[in-house]
Amino acid sequence: MVDTQGAEPMTYCLALRLDEGLFFMSDTRTNAGVDNVSTFRKLHVTKPAEGRVFVLQSAGNLATTHEVLDRLEGDLAGDGESLATVGRLFEAALYVGRLSREVVATHEARLGTAATATFIVGGQIAGERPEIFLVYPEGNYIRASDELPFLQIGEAKYGKFLLELAVRSNVDLATAAKIALSSMVSTARANVSVGPPYDAAVYLNGSFEVAEVRIDESSPYLAQLRDVWYTHLLDAIHHLPAIPPELSPS
Amino acid sequence: MVDTQGAEPMTYCLALRLDEGLFFMSDTRTNAGVDNVSTFRKLHVTKPAEGRVFVLQSAGNLATTHEVLDRLEGDLAGDGESLATVGRLFEAALYVGRLSREVVATHEARLGTAATATFIVGGQIAGERPEIFLVYPEGNYIRASDELPFLQIGEAKYGKFLLELAVRSNVDLATAAKIALSSMVSTARANVSVGPPYDAAVYLNGSFEVAEVRIDESSPYLAQLRDVWYTHLLDAIHHLPAIPPELSPS
Repeated sequence: MVDTQGAEPMTYCLALRLDEGLFFMSDTRTNAGVDNVSTFRKLHVTKPAEGRVFVLQSAGNLATTHEVLDRLEGDLAGDGESLATVGRLFEAALYVGRLSREVVATHEARLGTAATATFIVGGQIAGERPEIFLVYPEGNYIRASDELPFLQIGEAKYGKFLLELAVRSNVDLATAAKIALSSMVSTARANVSVGPPYDAAVYLNGSFEVAEVRIDESSPYLAQLRDVWYTHLLDAIHHLPAIPPELSPS
Repeated sequence: MVDTQGAEPMTYCLALRLDEGLFFMSDTRTNAGVDNVSTFRKLHVTKPAEGRVFVLQSAGNLATTHEVLDRLEGDLAGDGESLATVGRLFEAALYVGRLSREVVATHEARLGTAATATFIVGGQIAGERPEIFLVYPEGNYIRASDELPFLQIGEAKYGKFLLELAVRSNVDLATAAKIALSSMVSTARANVSVGPPYDAAVYLNGSFEVAEVRIDESSPYLAQLRDVWYTHLLDAIHHLPAIPPELSPS
């Protein structure tokens, strides 16, 4: 029963915090059992009030994710804590973490840890620098580091190397988009649970406007990028220095 | 108690089955708790009799691995089943799987699943084609596929993409060595639990001789390979096509 709801990571989301702004990318493949593989948006933009904008990405139990998003929206209409009321970005992260724990608590007797979800919360509140947070299922959070200014959730390992190698905070947003998409494409090739369409969101510091784009499987650009990426990787292998005789097993 | 023995994968081993022969590579980093990080050979060659040669690689609980290796050697001196007596390569895989289960059974009351280990068993028995097997902790095995003729154990995800992209059975052994080392280097960069020295073993079909080599952290070749690899990867990123205007969030 637990397995049918997809306890394994079935998602890849990443977020970059650059000098110019923030960049987010998510795949859309979800499953609730192998008979229920579908696409679902895992990247959500909300502007709950003037001078504040949030981007949410989610990985983990799909039902928990849906319910957290519904509660987030419900809270905006209420009088209590919401994304419209939190004073600081880290409080937004803690708030999402609280909702996540509350939703899981109502289901975990039947689902156990399979009910949990992990979130990336990013954005800007006027007066603060833009930021990205990874919110654990336990409700606490971490920021991206200054040295490696990115966060990943879901199937993070396949595409991590590339981000570590190439993502620095002074990378421009156009290059960041290419790196992110290459990391996504590499992950999707290695793991069937990650796949297009891919959603991207770009935030320029201080703009309080998030631009969104969806890249479909049929996109000629995606095919071209894959092609160039694979070709150059294979080319890189051919350029590797020959193993010297003293290291060649004979 | 379980965590101190390193339940998480702390290893990366890969094996390739090529038209020319077999190629094996393992890192050497092990831990039994963060206070006990060390190096240990995870690639073992044994020629228990004429016309048969085996290469074993291990990932998982270090104590279980040690005990399996000791039992393997002990059995060679006995009258029962051993690597000297198994008739087929797949029987060697099943035999290693049985020893692995037996060792785990003596400790699992205290260690649970943290006591398990996974093996790659490769080699050749005269009259059979050379082969590589992945032996699960449960004692059963899989072969490498014909389309993607490689196996990985331990921290497999970071370096998988590269193998999927580049390893085909018609790749020559020298190129295979470069691909394997790049996969290893990429993994070691992404995960601190994988590190040099790296052990490699090469087997030419029908030779019944395994050539071994160790590549140390201080190896100028390793530094050069890392440098060329990283440079070409970054170069590949720069060659990626620019995101077209219709896909650029504006």
